[in-house]
Amino acid sequence: MSTATATTNVAQTPEQEVRALFEKWLAAVRSHDVDAIMSCYAPDVVAFDAILALQFKGADSYGKHWRACLEMCTGPMVFEIRELNVEAEEDVAFAHWLNRCGGTDEKGEEKSSWMRVTAGYRRIKGSWRIVHEHFSAPFDIASGKALFDLQP
Amino acid sequence: MSTATATTNVAQTPEQEVRALFEKWLAAVRSHDVDAIMSCYAPDVVAFDAILALQFKGADSYGKHWRACLEMCTGPMVFEIRELNVEAEEDVAFAHWLNRCGGTDEKGEEKSSWMRVTAGYRRIKGSWRIVHEHFSAPFDIASGKALFDLQP
Repeated sequence: MSTATATTNVAQTPEQEVRALFEKWLAAVRSHDVDAIMSCYAPDVVAFDAILALQFKGADSYGKHWRACLEMCTGPMVFEIRELNVEAEEDVAFAHWLNRCGGTDEKGEEKSSWMRVTAGYRRIKGSWRIVHEHFSAPFDIASGKALFDLQP
Repeated sequence: MSTATATTNVAQTPEQEVRALFEKWLAAVRSHDVDAIMSCYAPDVVAFDAILALQFKGADSYGKHWRACLEMCTGPMVFEIRELNVEAEEDVAFAHWLNRCGGTDEKGEEKSSWMRVTAGYRRIKGSWRIVHEHFSAPFDIASGKALFDLQP
């Protein structure tokens, strides 16, 4: 993005710092920049993603998964955030939000669904990092199928 | 439980306090005691459960859901914890773990699967409470079905 942001010397609260990391992560995801996405995570991140595996341990494993996920995403990406809530103290924080995720198929039709996300953060050597992430869709008990049509 | 625990005056670290709340919650779930389970949550808890809805807002709504879930659970309950990780500061904490959940059907066969759980905590008026909870199973992209057979 070419928009310049003026740097100020005003001290930020931990919540503002965590929200700044969230915005950096969000911009990186929306621009499909895996290196920028992965710069937001701690090396020993433990991720519970919505698909494929119970967990991904470590930034190498999770970075490969992010790359594979973004490669599945063709056409304009849908990545909308709603109801972001951040709880932050000096060095530990967590956040949760609703996240509409999807893409556009070859006919130009948008395919997306609302997911839930929780993230855990730690300040490591002065910088906030995502140390835990949990993406999911709820499922229907009778069919065992993920519920992709729920609305907030 | 009839086992008496000696009370000591040794100050606990925040992590120990959060782990004590976790153990209280775990014992309450295993004994199907909805009132004891709900005493662990903040009134304004936001819960992303594994089934049915995107989110449950508030202890009243989530308590009804807990009651309905436990009523589905017939026979001996399976509720096994693995890889519990707690990050705690003075008044904010989060935890994540793998949780095998299930029950026993009328033929005596155990039906269970590994889920992922993340919880967010805050110390409210001196006492730790769960302010956020996220339970889920990952799903398979091709079929859209929850993956119930994954092993840690």
